[in-house]
Parts: sequence; structure tokens; C-alpha cells
Amino acid sequence: MRPGRPAGSPPNRQAILTAARRKFAEHGYNQATIRAIAADAGVDPALVHHYFGTKAQLFAAAHAFPVDPRQVLPMLLEGDRGDLGARLVAFFLQIMGADPAGEGNPVIGLLRSAVTHDSAAAMLREFVSAEVLGPLAESLAVPDPQLRASLASSQLIGLAVARYVVRLEPLVTADDEVLTAWYGPTIQRYLTAPDADQ
Amino acid sequence: MRPGRPAGSPPNRQAILTAARRKFAEHGYNQATIRAIAADAGVDPALVHHYFGTKAQLFAAAHAFPVDPRQVLPMLLEGDRGDLGARLVAFFLQIMGADPAGEGNPVIGLLRSAVTHDSAAAMLREFVSAEVLGPLAESLAVPDPQLRASLASSQLIGLAVARYVVRLEPLVTADDEVLTAWYGPTIQRYLTAPDADQ
Repeated sequence: MRPGRPAGSPPNRQAILTAARRKFAEHGYNQATIRAIAADAGVDPALVHHYFGTKAQLFAAAHAFPVDPRQVLPMLLEGDRGDLGARLVAFFLQIMGADPAGEGNPVIGLLRSAVTHDSAAAMLREFVSAEVLGPLAESLAVPDPQLRASLASSQLIGLAVARYVVRLEPLVTADDEVLTAWYGPTIQRYLTAPDADQ
Repeated sequence: MRPGRPAGSPPNRQAILTAARRKFAEHGYNQATIRAIAADAGVDPALVHHYFGTKAQLFAAAHAFPVDPRQVLPMLLEGDRGDLGARLVAFFLQIMGADPAGEGNPVIGLLRSAVTHDSAAAMLREFVSAEVLGPLAESLAVPDPQLRASLASSQLIGLAVARYVVRLEPLVTADDEVLTAWYGPTIQRYLTAPDADQ
């Protein structure tokens, strides 16, 4: 037990994680500060350091992902395998669409950090591999399941960057239904086609 | 004519643009400095400012793109329309693959800047719309040509980010031929299918 431990209740810890996710998403990894995160959470910066250590450790702790893929993926993988691509795209658009401008969007915050910091890229890579690609690939009865999962991820990442960061028109203003109709079969083919030449 | 104009030959101008592309790609927009670009080009920083103004203006001038799409696109659009997707993917992998690690890669530099700076995102968006999506869409005899072009761009952007920035395996180590076999039909469908439900 370390000396001088400040009094801190679990709600404080949650408030810090929530504030961290918001600040990293708004400002990116580099420009979000422990001080601003602490202010946002209504706690002393020392408490943030005490609970989570460095900014990098706080980042890792905060970005367990906006939703827990270990809960969501099995749900999405259930049901008609023929609609898997459309279900994944519709769900992805739904979690992205909470804030279409991209500000405060946790996925965009993660991508922003990954693009500017090798350590954040490694963090995101490790997270996506362990929590998304791995379970997804495991559920697929196809050759090269890891490649399939990474192909699908590349299209969803590209959709996020093109629509919410670079803001290419008419992607930005297209209806989610239209995008699901276009992207669904792409994800479906990547995940379930017998091979690339299906 | 402005007073005090330093002597400067066109080769200096070219050297600065080349150095700027390299430094922006290596360090991103934020961390690349006029001083480092000038040192790399072997000129005085004042000359860089004189020729190009602000860092933002230099960035815009430098990123006319690694290849001139106005020259390359017509070439790619010629030939069998049934192979268009594969041709575009193979060409994209070729220009990306000059440096697989992504360091010094102009496309990655552009994406890095776009993700961290709204102004760079606007710059990239305007550039891609004017020089890539516009001409590409114009050449397609399909409904919603602008949407098609932006769908295709989203997959190529996602491939770039997933493979060269986040470095998802096994995308990183997959052969270009394997990736072309997977991504080619995606781009082909986005650009040439009669509609999303083809």
C-alpha cells in the first residue's frame, strides 16, 4: 500500500475515464492534457496520475472502446450469416453517427492518435487485434480468417476517415441506409467469400 | 515587384518543395518546421518564406501529390473497363509501396496532416475532389458517379491507414497480388456496378 494515497471513490475513477475519452477524442493524444482531463472530471490532476500513471497509461485505460466488443461482437455474429456484412456496417455507422461531425467521437479520437503517434498506433493495433480481429476471425469458418478480419477493418477505418475526418462528399451527407447497401456486401465478401475470386 | 527579393533560381524552389514533401511526410504537418525544411533543401529559411509564405501555403504547394493524377488517371481509365478496379489498386499499392514502413511516404504524410488539422483535411478534401474524384466520376457512365468515386477513395484510404499507419497484420505482410485480388473487385463494384444491389 502506497503512502499518501488520496481519498478517491470509484465514481471519481469513472469520471476521469469519461473525461479522458472525451478530451482525447476532441484534441487528440498530443494536445489533451492531464490538467484539462482532471478539470473536466472535477478532480485534482494528482488523482489522475495516482489512479492511472502516465498520460499514455490513462489513454490505454480510457480507450477500452466506446462499446465493449466482447459483448457486441457475439451479438452481431449471431443470426443470418448472409447479413453479417450489413449488420456490421449498420452497427459501425450507428456508433460513429452519435456525433457526425466527428468531434468527441471516440473512434475518431483513436484514429487521430494512431495516425500521429506510433505508440498510440501500437495501442490501437493491439486492441483491435485482441478484441476485434481475433474474436471475429475465430468465428469465421473460412481460409485466412485473420486476413479477412483485417480487410474488413480496413474498409471500416477508411469509411471513418473519409466520412468523418477528410469529410469527402457525398459520403458525409449520404444516408446510412445507402452506405450500408454499398459497404455491407464488401464486408460480407471479405468475411465470408470462399476466396478472393469468389 | 517586391523590394529586397533574394536571388533564387528555380532549382532552389524545386529543392524546397522536395524537402517540404519529405519533412511533412516524416513528421506530419505540426512537427515539420520551416527551419528543418530549409536545412534539408540547403537554403536559408527566409528564402522558403519568401517563395511560399506560411507553412500552410508551403504545405499546399508541396502536396500537388506524389504523382500528377491528371496524367495518371487517364492512363488508368484506359483499357478494359472490367479490370479498372484491379488497375487502380495495383497502382495505389505501387505508389504506397515505395516505402512500406510509411516513413517518407507522401500519401501517409497527407493523411497524417488531414487527421490532425482541419485545414489540412480541407486541403486534402479539395485536392482529392478536384483532381481525383471529379475526373474519375466524369469518366464513369454510372448513376451517382461522385458517390462511387468517394466509396472507392474510402477503401483506398482505409487500406493506407490500416496497412501503413495502424499496421494491422496480416495486411502489412500480405503480397500486393493478394491484396489486389481482394480489393480490386471492391473498387470495381463501387465504380462500375449498376447499383448497390448488383
